[in-house]
Amino acid sequence: MEDEISSFFESSPPLKNMKETTENLNHFIELNSSGFSGGRRIVCVTSGGTTVPLEQRCVRYIDNFSSGNRGAASTENFVKAGYAVIFLYRRGTFQPYCRSLPDDPFLECFEFPDKTNIQVHKSHLEAVKMAVMDQQAAVAEGRLLKLPFSTIYEYLQMLRLIAMVLKDVGPYSMFYLAAAVSDFYVPWDSMTEHKIESGSGPLDIRLAQVPKMLSILRSNGFLHIIQDSKILIEKATKALRKYKVHAVVANELSTRKEEVVVVSSSGNVVVRREWDKPESIVEDNLIRLIVDRHSTYIKEYHS
Amino acid sequence: MEDEISSFFESSPPLKNMKETTENLNHFIELNSSGFSGGRRIVCVTSGGTTVPLEQRCVRYIDNFSSGNRGAASTENFVKAGYAVIFLYRRGTFQPYCRSLPDDPFLECFEFPDKTNIQVHKSHLEAVKMAVMDQQAAVAEGRLLKLPFSTIYEYLQMLRLIAMVLKDVGPYSMFYLAAAVSDFYVPWDSMTEHKIESGSGPLDIRLAQVPKMLSILRSNGFLHIIQDSKILIEKATKALRKYKVHAVVANELSTRKEEVVVVSSSGNVVVRREWDKPESIVEDNLIRLIVDRHSTYIKEYHS
Repeated sequence: MEDEISSFFESSPPLKNMKETTENLNHFIELNSSGFSGGRRIVCVTSGGTTVPLEQRCVRYIDNFSSGNRGAASTENFVKAGYAVIFLYRRGTFQPYCRSLPDDPFLECFEFPDKTNIQVHKSHLEAVKMAVMDQQAAVAEGRLLKLPFSTIYEYLQMLRLIAMVLKDVGPYSMFYLAAAVSDFYVPWDSMTEHKIESGSGPLDIRLAQVPKMLSILRSNGFLHIIQDSKILIEKATKALRKYKVHAVVANELSTRKEEVVVVSSSGNVVVRREWDKPESIVEDNLIRLIVDRHSTYIKEYHS
Repeated sequence: MEDEISSFFESSPPLKNMKETTENLNHFIELNSSGFSGGRRIVCVTSGGTTVPLEQRCVRYIDNFSSGNRGAASTENFVKAGYAVIFLYRRGTFQPYCRSLPDDPFLECFEFPDKTNIQVHKSHLEAVKMAVMDQQAAVAEGRLLKLPFSTIYEYLQMLRLIAMVLKDVGPYSMFYLAAAVSDFYVPWDSMTEHKIESGSGPLDIRLAQVPKMLSILRSNGFLHIIQDSKILIEKATKALRKYKVHAVVANELSTRKEEVVVVSSSGNVVVRREWDKPESIVEDNLIRLIVDRHSTYIKEYHS
């Protein structure tokens, strides 16, 4: 297992802007564990799907679809609960505080009535305010660090980097893994450099399994993973044991915005959004529960 | 060949919002061929890459990467040249008039200095003005119709629909195909309905070739395709004959923003961006050339 993991990392193309990312991370951790901030809890939220390149000069790739809605909504709730959030997200997926914007915001939200002053259409004012004011405030206060990825290589290398810098934060740190991670990949070494030409006849692709990587996070604080599944409780219970995480949040694709099940060694809890409040989302109650559990975990750690 | 094409369409999942799309298209064509608009030329610009689902409930898919920069920039230039543009684009790729926005515009472009009035940071004022004013003007004047796609099934069905409604426009219409279309796909019928489970061992996928579809556009006006290639001129010349298009625009990946080669039966023309103007892009000269060729084509058609 360890062998598979190290050979995965050894054969990965090196991270671009590794130095800058490390500096940003260190600065962010320092800021949030200093006396000035009172020592905030720090959560790494992963969001969106990873891609697997089929060619080294990546034109074609296999993608795991995930809108990133869960990760973005959870990030907002973690910030509200006082956490500092490292938001490791797939480029182009939902961003925290921007979930209510329309698909084509520059076409729909704004106008320049006199060619000098921009205005927001009334119907989108709240959405734009949130995207601009709340998001900028979270970043300016050092409560939100956004780190984008595309490929599984970038994702796993960045996750490992975050795990390393979070080690010192110990029980005050949490991983909340909502990204949809590829199960299969084409090992970089065995990959064709150039575009696969379309000749005649079918194309056969052989994909290897991505090694399970949760062990690189294990020495850290509190660990949550999110799963989409039809046979959810059974799978979640298996995952809980197999990966030794503190909880698995399971949801069905069709009802994922209404309810989730938090599966942990202390039992299963169904979490629903508040039906009588149209604005409420399931993440409001979900993150509240997880934050409570994290508090208990920290207390037990110290006793 | 015709058989392959019809079996592709027969096995495709039906287009959602087919009715709305058809209505929007008909309205757009009518508006632009009426006496009021003086009978504008109409171009369909395709942009971005198509996806190929590997599962019917699409979680995993194979994607063809394309930023959509060429298609977006060309669209702006076609509008400037007086054309009405049907912009058939991959969701999430570059939009016309929005190429100069930063990656994270809501984090970087705006502020709410007094919590009621929004302002644009000076450094991004021109980019935001363009995205809002120029884009909205093009749409409001009925010069730009944006139609999004994701899968190859959506793309090819919409392209066929556009070809049908454009038939009446005859030589005044043009197809400018800049999208990166998948060469291989998993036929919908033979596809697994649910998520492919990650068991043990490697995963083998067999992909069939996507039939060449340009024949569905052939009875229409002027036809251009864009190609990325290392062996570009040779491939473009072959493509020109094989697909019977009026020109192939060939570019190399590394120099695609500096120069392209327009390959046609009258010879090859190298088009470059204007080196001494930092703001100029290769599409300025490229679209000028193509519009000239289209004018000649219309003249010859009538004589």
